[in-house]
Amino acid sequence: MIIVLRPGSSKETAEEILSRIEKMGCKPLYMPGTERVVLGAIGDERVLESLQLEGHPAVESVSPVLAPYKMVSRELHPHDSVIKIGADLEVGSNQFAVIAGPCAVESYDQLDRTAEVIQKQNVKCLRAGAFKPRTSPYSFQGLGGEGIALLSRVSKQRKLAVVTELVEIADIDLVTRTVDAIQIGTRNMQNFRLLEAVGDTDRPVILKRGMAATIKDLLLAAEYIVSRGNPNVILCERGIKTFEQVTRNTLDLSAVAYIKQRSHLPVIVDPSHGTGVRELVSPMTRAAAACGADGVMIEVHVNPSEALSDGKQSLYPDQFAALMRTLKPVLQAVGREL
Amino acid sequence: MIIVLRPGSSKETAEEILSRIEKMGCKPLYMPGTERVVLGAIGDERVLESLQLEGHPAVESVSPVLAPYKMVSRELHPHDSVIKIGADLEVGSNQFAVIAGPCAVESYDQLDRTAEVIQKQNVKCLRAGAFKPRTSPYSFQGLGGEGIALLSRVSKQRKLAVVTELVEIADIDLVTRTVDAIQIGTRNMQNFRLLEAVGDTDRPVILKRGMAATIKDLLLAAEYIVSRGNPNVILCERGIKTFEQVTRNTLDLSAVAYIKQRSHLPVIVDPSHGTGVRELVSPMTRAAAACGADGVMIEVHVNPSEALSDGKQSLYPDQFAALMRTLKPVLQAVGREL
Amino acid sequence: MIIVLRPGSSKETAEEILSRIEKMGCKPLYMPGTERVVLGAIGDERVLESLQLEGHPAVESVSPVLAPYKMVSRELHPHDSVIKIGADLEVGSNQFAVIAGPCAVESYDQLDRTAEVIQKQNVKCLRAGAFKPRTSPYSFQGLGGEGIALLSRVSKQRKLAVVTELVEIADIDLVTRTVDAIQIGTRNMQNFRLLEAVGDTDRPVILKRGMAATIKDLLLAAEYIVSRGNPNVILCERGIKTFEQVTRNTLDLSAVAYIKQRSHLPVIVDPSHGTGVRELVSPMTRAAAACGADGVMIEVHVNPSEALSDGKQSLYPDQFAALMRTLKPVLQAVGREL
Amino acid sequence: MIIVLRPGSSKETAEEILSRIEKMGCKPLYMPGTERVVLGAIGDERVLESLQLEGHPAVESVSPVLAPYKMVSRELHPHDSVIKIGADLEVGSNQFAVIAGPCAVESYDQLDRTAEVIQKQNVKCLRAGAFKPRTSPYSFQGLGGEGIALLSRVSKQRKLAVVTELVEIADIDLVTRTVDAIQIGTRNMQNFRLLEAVGDTDRPVILKRGMAATIKDLLLAAEYIVSRGNPNVILCERGIKTFEQVTRNTLDLSAVAYIKQRSHLPVIVDPSHGTGVRELVSPMTRAAAACGADGVMIEVHVNPSEALSDGKQSLYPDQFAALMRTLKPVLQAVGREL
Repeated sequence: MIIVLRPGSSKETAEEILSRIEKMGCKPLYMPGTERVVLGAIGDERVLESLQLEGHPAVESVSPVLAPYKMVSRELHPHDSVIKIGADLEVGSNQFAVIAGPCAVESYDQLDRTAEVIQKQNVKCLRAGAFKPRTSPYSFQGLGGEGIALLSRVSKQRKLAVVTELVEIADIDLVTRTVDAIQIGTRNMQNFRLLEAVGDTDRPVILKRGMAATIKDLLLAAEYIVSRGNPNVILCERGIKTFEQVTRNTLDLSAVAYIKQRSHLPVIVDPSHGTGVRELVSPMTRAAAACGADGVMIEVHVNPSEALSDGKQSLYPDQFAALMRTLKPVLQAVGREL
Repeated sequence: MIIVLRPGSSKETAEEILSRIEKMGCKPLYMPGTERVVLGAIGDERVLESLQLEGHPAVESVSPVLAPYKMVSRELHPHDSVIKIGADLEVGSNQFAVIAGPCAVESYDQLDRTAEVIQKQNVKCLRAGAFKPRTSPYSFQGLGGEGIALLSRVSKQRKLAVVTELVEIADIDLVTRTVDAIQIGTRNMQNFRLLEAVGDTDRPVILKRGMAATIKDLLLAAEYIVSRGNPNVILCERGIKTFEQVTRNTLDLSAVAYIKQRSHLPVIVDPSHGTGVRELVSPMTRAAAACGADGVMIEVHVNPSEALSDGKQSLYPDQFAALMRTLKPVLQAVGREL
Repeated sequence: MIIVLRPGSSKETAEEILSRIEKMGCKPLYMPGTERVVLGAIGDERVLESLQLEGHPAVESVSPVLAPYKMVSRELHPHDSVIKIGADLEVGSNQFAVIAGPCAVESYDQLDRTAEVIQKQNVKCLRAGAFKPRTSPYSFQGLGGEGIALLSRVSKQRKLAVVTELVEIADIDLVTRTVDAIQIGTRNMQNFRLLEAVGDTDRPVILKRGMAATIKDLLLAAEYIVSRGNPNVILCERGIKTFEQVTRNTLDLSAVAYIKQRSHLPVIVDPSHGTGVRELVSPMTRAAAACGADGVMIEVHVNPSEALSDGKQSLYPDQFAALMRTLKPVLQAVGREL
Repeated sequence: MIIVLRPGSSKETAEEILSRIEKMGCKPLYMPGTERVVLGAIGDERVLESLQLEGHPAVESVSPVLAPYKMVSRELHPHDSVIKIGADLEVGSNQFAVIAGPCAVESYDQLDRTAEVIQKQNVKCLRAGAFKPRTSPYSFQGLGGEGIALLSRVSKQRKLAVVTELVEIADIDLVTRTVDAIQIGTRNMQNFRLLEAVGDTDRPVILKRGMAATIKDLLLAAEYIVSRGNPNVILCERGIKTFEQVTRNTLDLSAVAYIKQRSHLPVIVDPSHGTGVRELVSPMTRAAAACGADGVMIEVHVNPSEALSDGKQSLYPDQFAALMRTLKPVLQAVGREL
């Protein structure tokens, strides 16, 4: 850790801080410069976090040398984690994971017909929300427990793995019993109690990046889950909030490439929320595959023009089929398969 | 609601959409232009939300005419809401509300001494967190239930109203029993279940703006609470995420002025999180007062250089005293008092 | 154009505005609703821009129905524009354009050796800056006219097309005489005089997106050039400013897919500035190819660790060779070639 | 300067870098830690910029200890700079500078009548644009040289100082001859040649913050001007681009307080562009005064509903009069006067 003192800080102040560093078990360093005094701390600097040196009136800035996350880091665990969802999907392997389905469970018929559409394309995991976090209280809020029951029914009948979003600890048993993977949505990426709760299960967790979350924030959110004992975390890039408004969010594909270099966790992409525009889903899926993502999560609806939510970004069945056709050669080009 | 069709859309498509609009009870309008066909819907367009017309393949864009929030809007309720916290604080009135205290409850001694500091400045409401949402799992997470107990003890002894953050529905009874107002933090602004839960109480709620939340998102989050039956919502501007990094967030004071014109709810400002820099707290508090905010929430600590969290942005007791001195004439200038 | 009036606006006000619309040659529409009066204008609404109706005190909002750009729009010109740079490069065709070279011309030796590196990979266009816009006045500012002379020399000797950035109208003759395409940098995307000046030449222009420019802003900047008579504009996505700081910018690849649908102009991607991180350049180049970009502009340096600028994001010769190898199958997968 | 090496970097690499640091005249420091090797450079680290150590393949990160700007810094020049515009305005002094006028010069009548409006409020400096940078080529582009002539005429007749924007070096003599201060607009904040050109004059320069410029970028842009020999730079906060869209930009008043602590240059605020909404101009002007700004630049128009540009954000004459009335007590509260 590197600590820069404000101009005019006394030798005594520096010594006080250095002795606090030493007490925490780090080796202190004193580096007086021409315009600033710089202090260093060598050792496991994460223990210094509790000193909260940024709060000291003589401190101008504190720069950690190490990343604040550990268990999700490739330094600790150099090989790619492979996480199974259901019997047939290995996320993080050579297999490119396609998870698809409607934004929300609306009815048995809608869910089953959409499941049929994706199964025809050899997709092995269905996504659909039963608990829908909606910006407005007047929007469709999902079918709740009834939606979970429908998901379970379709999953069993079709032998399809299923993923759904968990928004509240109270529902964790219901959801865990039913689904093959739990989704933590963008608005809950920093709902730390919820992260701890799924960290106490052994279910795969798809953790979506918060709209205002840096990559570091995302990795620290994953660290919450992993450090509770659940190593099965799949990160999901789904766009961040920027000034650009023709897309719903700005899909940050560099984040995928960046995280793949720093973390052993699999990373998938949600081009549906990431763009919010049906016509952009297919090109961005291909781009995700080309930059090294381990999979995608795509909204497909048997009839988007009558969807109760997110119709604007849902693919029609024939669009989804066309996407899968054009995706295959791109995957081959980067050494992956469906 | 104004619906613009894509170029080349047929008359039949337009008629299909118009008949769906009519079925929902709105008056449909057909406006063929030279380059685009535009459709209109007159009436309570909020009922049209369920049509999800954005999802229709022939629709280029949908622009609502009305704001999506109702109960929090000044159009429905033109007069300022005044919300009482404890016996002595009327937020939204002529009284400028100052809520102050440490980021977190750390110990009885720390809390009580900080309470003494703010009480000396005639502050009537103490803030302090017992449940701390922290970006890293390795940071201090708050004292939890023990922190609530300490808050309760200091509150009673000093006859000070108290505010604390609620992060999980499971704690709602404990928190509601103890505190005079509940804070919903920035990371939970769109934790809709939590909003509904506090909406089912009658306790004042301080709702902090999410880091990536637009003003509209914030007002819709408030609508969640108010539409459940709890009208006692105080909005809190606390900075948004932008590319600027020398401040922790970018404090958006225009949001205060904007919301005061559109909503009857009181708006306060958190200059501590809004800037993240101790030296900026005092000027931004004065600015908040000058632009029409109904109050501020400020981090003060009896000894910031030893705070377990947010020390960097906490005021020292003498800085807080100086701020209160300089704040008074500004309040007078805008016709308010402490 | 759709004009929403403020609540309480009188019939007279509406009529006054409608008569102004009619005088401009558009057909006025009056649509009184239950809570708002909405006005419409049918016809070439771009002529209404001069009315500046947003400034009217009774107007709540003005929403154009049509895009504000015309000549760059696919509606006017449905087929892809193909723009030649030098003898061998056709940007916007089936050929995927790779433009590569150092950030800045540093010396004959550095430029020529880098040119050799890219030519070995069959690259047909060299990029290098002679006039360098640098954030700090204390950074290397480029070799200026001398740099242009070196570019010209290497270009002739190696029969390589060259691109360089123009930052000031005074240099336009010098630059136009020498290079095959002119680059307008991100900081000058809204330097409208400079846009007009290059619009008066017939030289291909690579127009980089401004760091805070929306896609609409970028297309309007291109419209400045095209409307002056120069149709040879190549748009370049190079990242926008967001809160994410581990990358220098956030590369917005959705913008590529979005623009390709709305505009006939070719779009290329600059993954070097877009990420600012050497290790991310190759995956993002592949992603650019996969999402439909017409080419890339990449920083390559014969020895990045001694580059005078942007060394951090420049590829080493062997990294560039490896990238070209892995790019080929991706291009094939999307039906393109080098 | 602090240099963190990548894991696994060899001792030889560290020594190579340290010897490059030593050759530049800085004292090198070697700090091997448990997980990373950290290097330090003590001395005038600005000379190390030319080493471009970020480009070295073994370097993980480079953190400067000092700010990259010098001449504009308070460390070099601790006292407030006071800059005169015309005979009567001292920006940076106890006098709060109000600069007001229409967005653009439209006609003699419009300019003179608006000048009368502001002069009645005792304003000493008129602003109006003759060269207008407009996002669309189809918008009103300003009267150019004729506008400058009108400004000159009104300035002389009314003995009012005038400010106008310079967008192109070719106009610098014309503008410098006529106006009392030169404005560099937000789109030209990093038009470094233009900065150098105004740096070669002795005219006061109002430098507006770029829409995507950090505070550091703004101070470095000022450094361009000051380091050419013109110390008369007034910084202007005018809002940055964020995801919030109900305001045209997000006015960053914390930037004012932050800069006042780090730089001796005066800082003014443009609440008109900063918000883009007429109703927000007055509260944000009061906030600017309260947080320590040295003045404001406000758009006032004799009849905003017929303005050729920016009518939406221009004050009506009576609104401006009301603002000046309410501003006075706020200024008094912070120890300033008009």
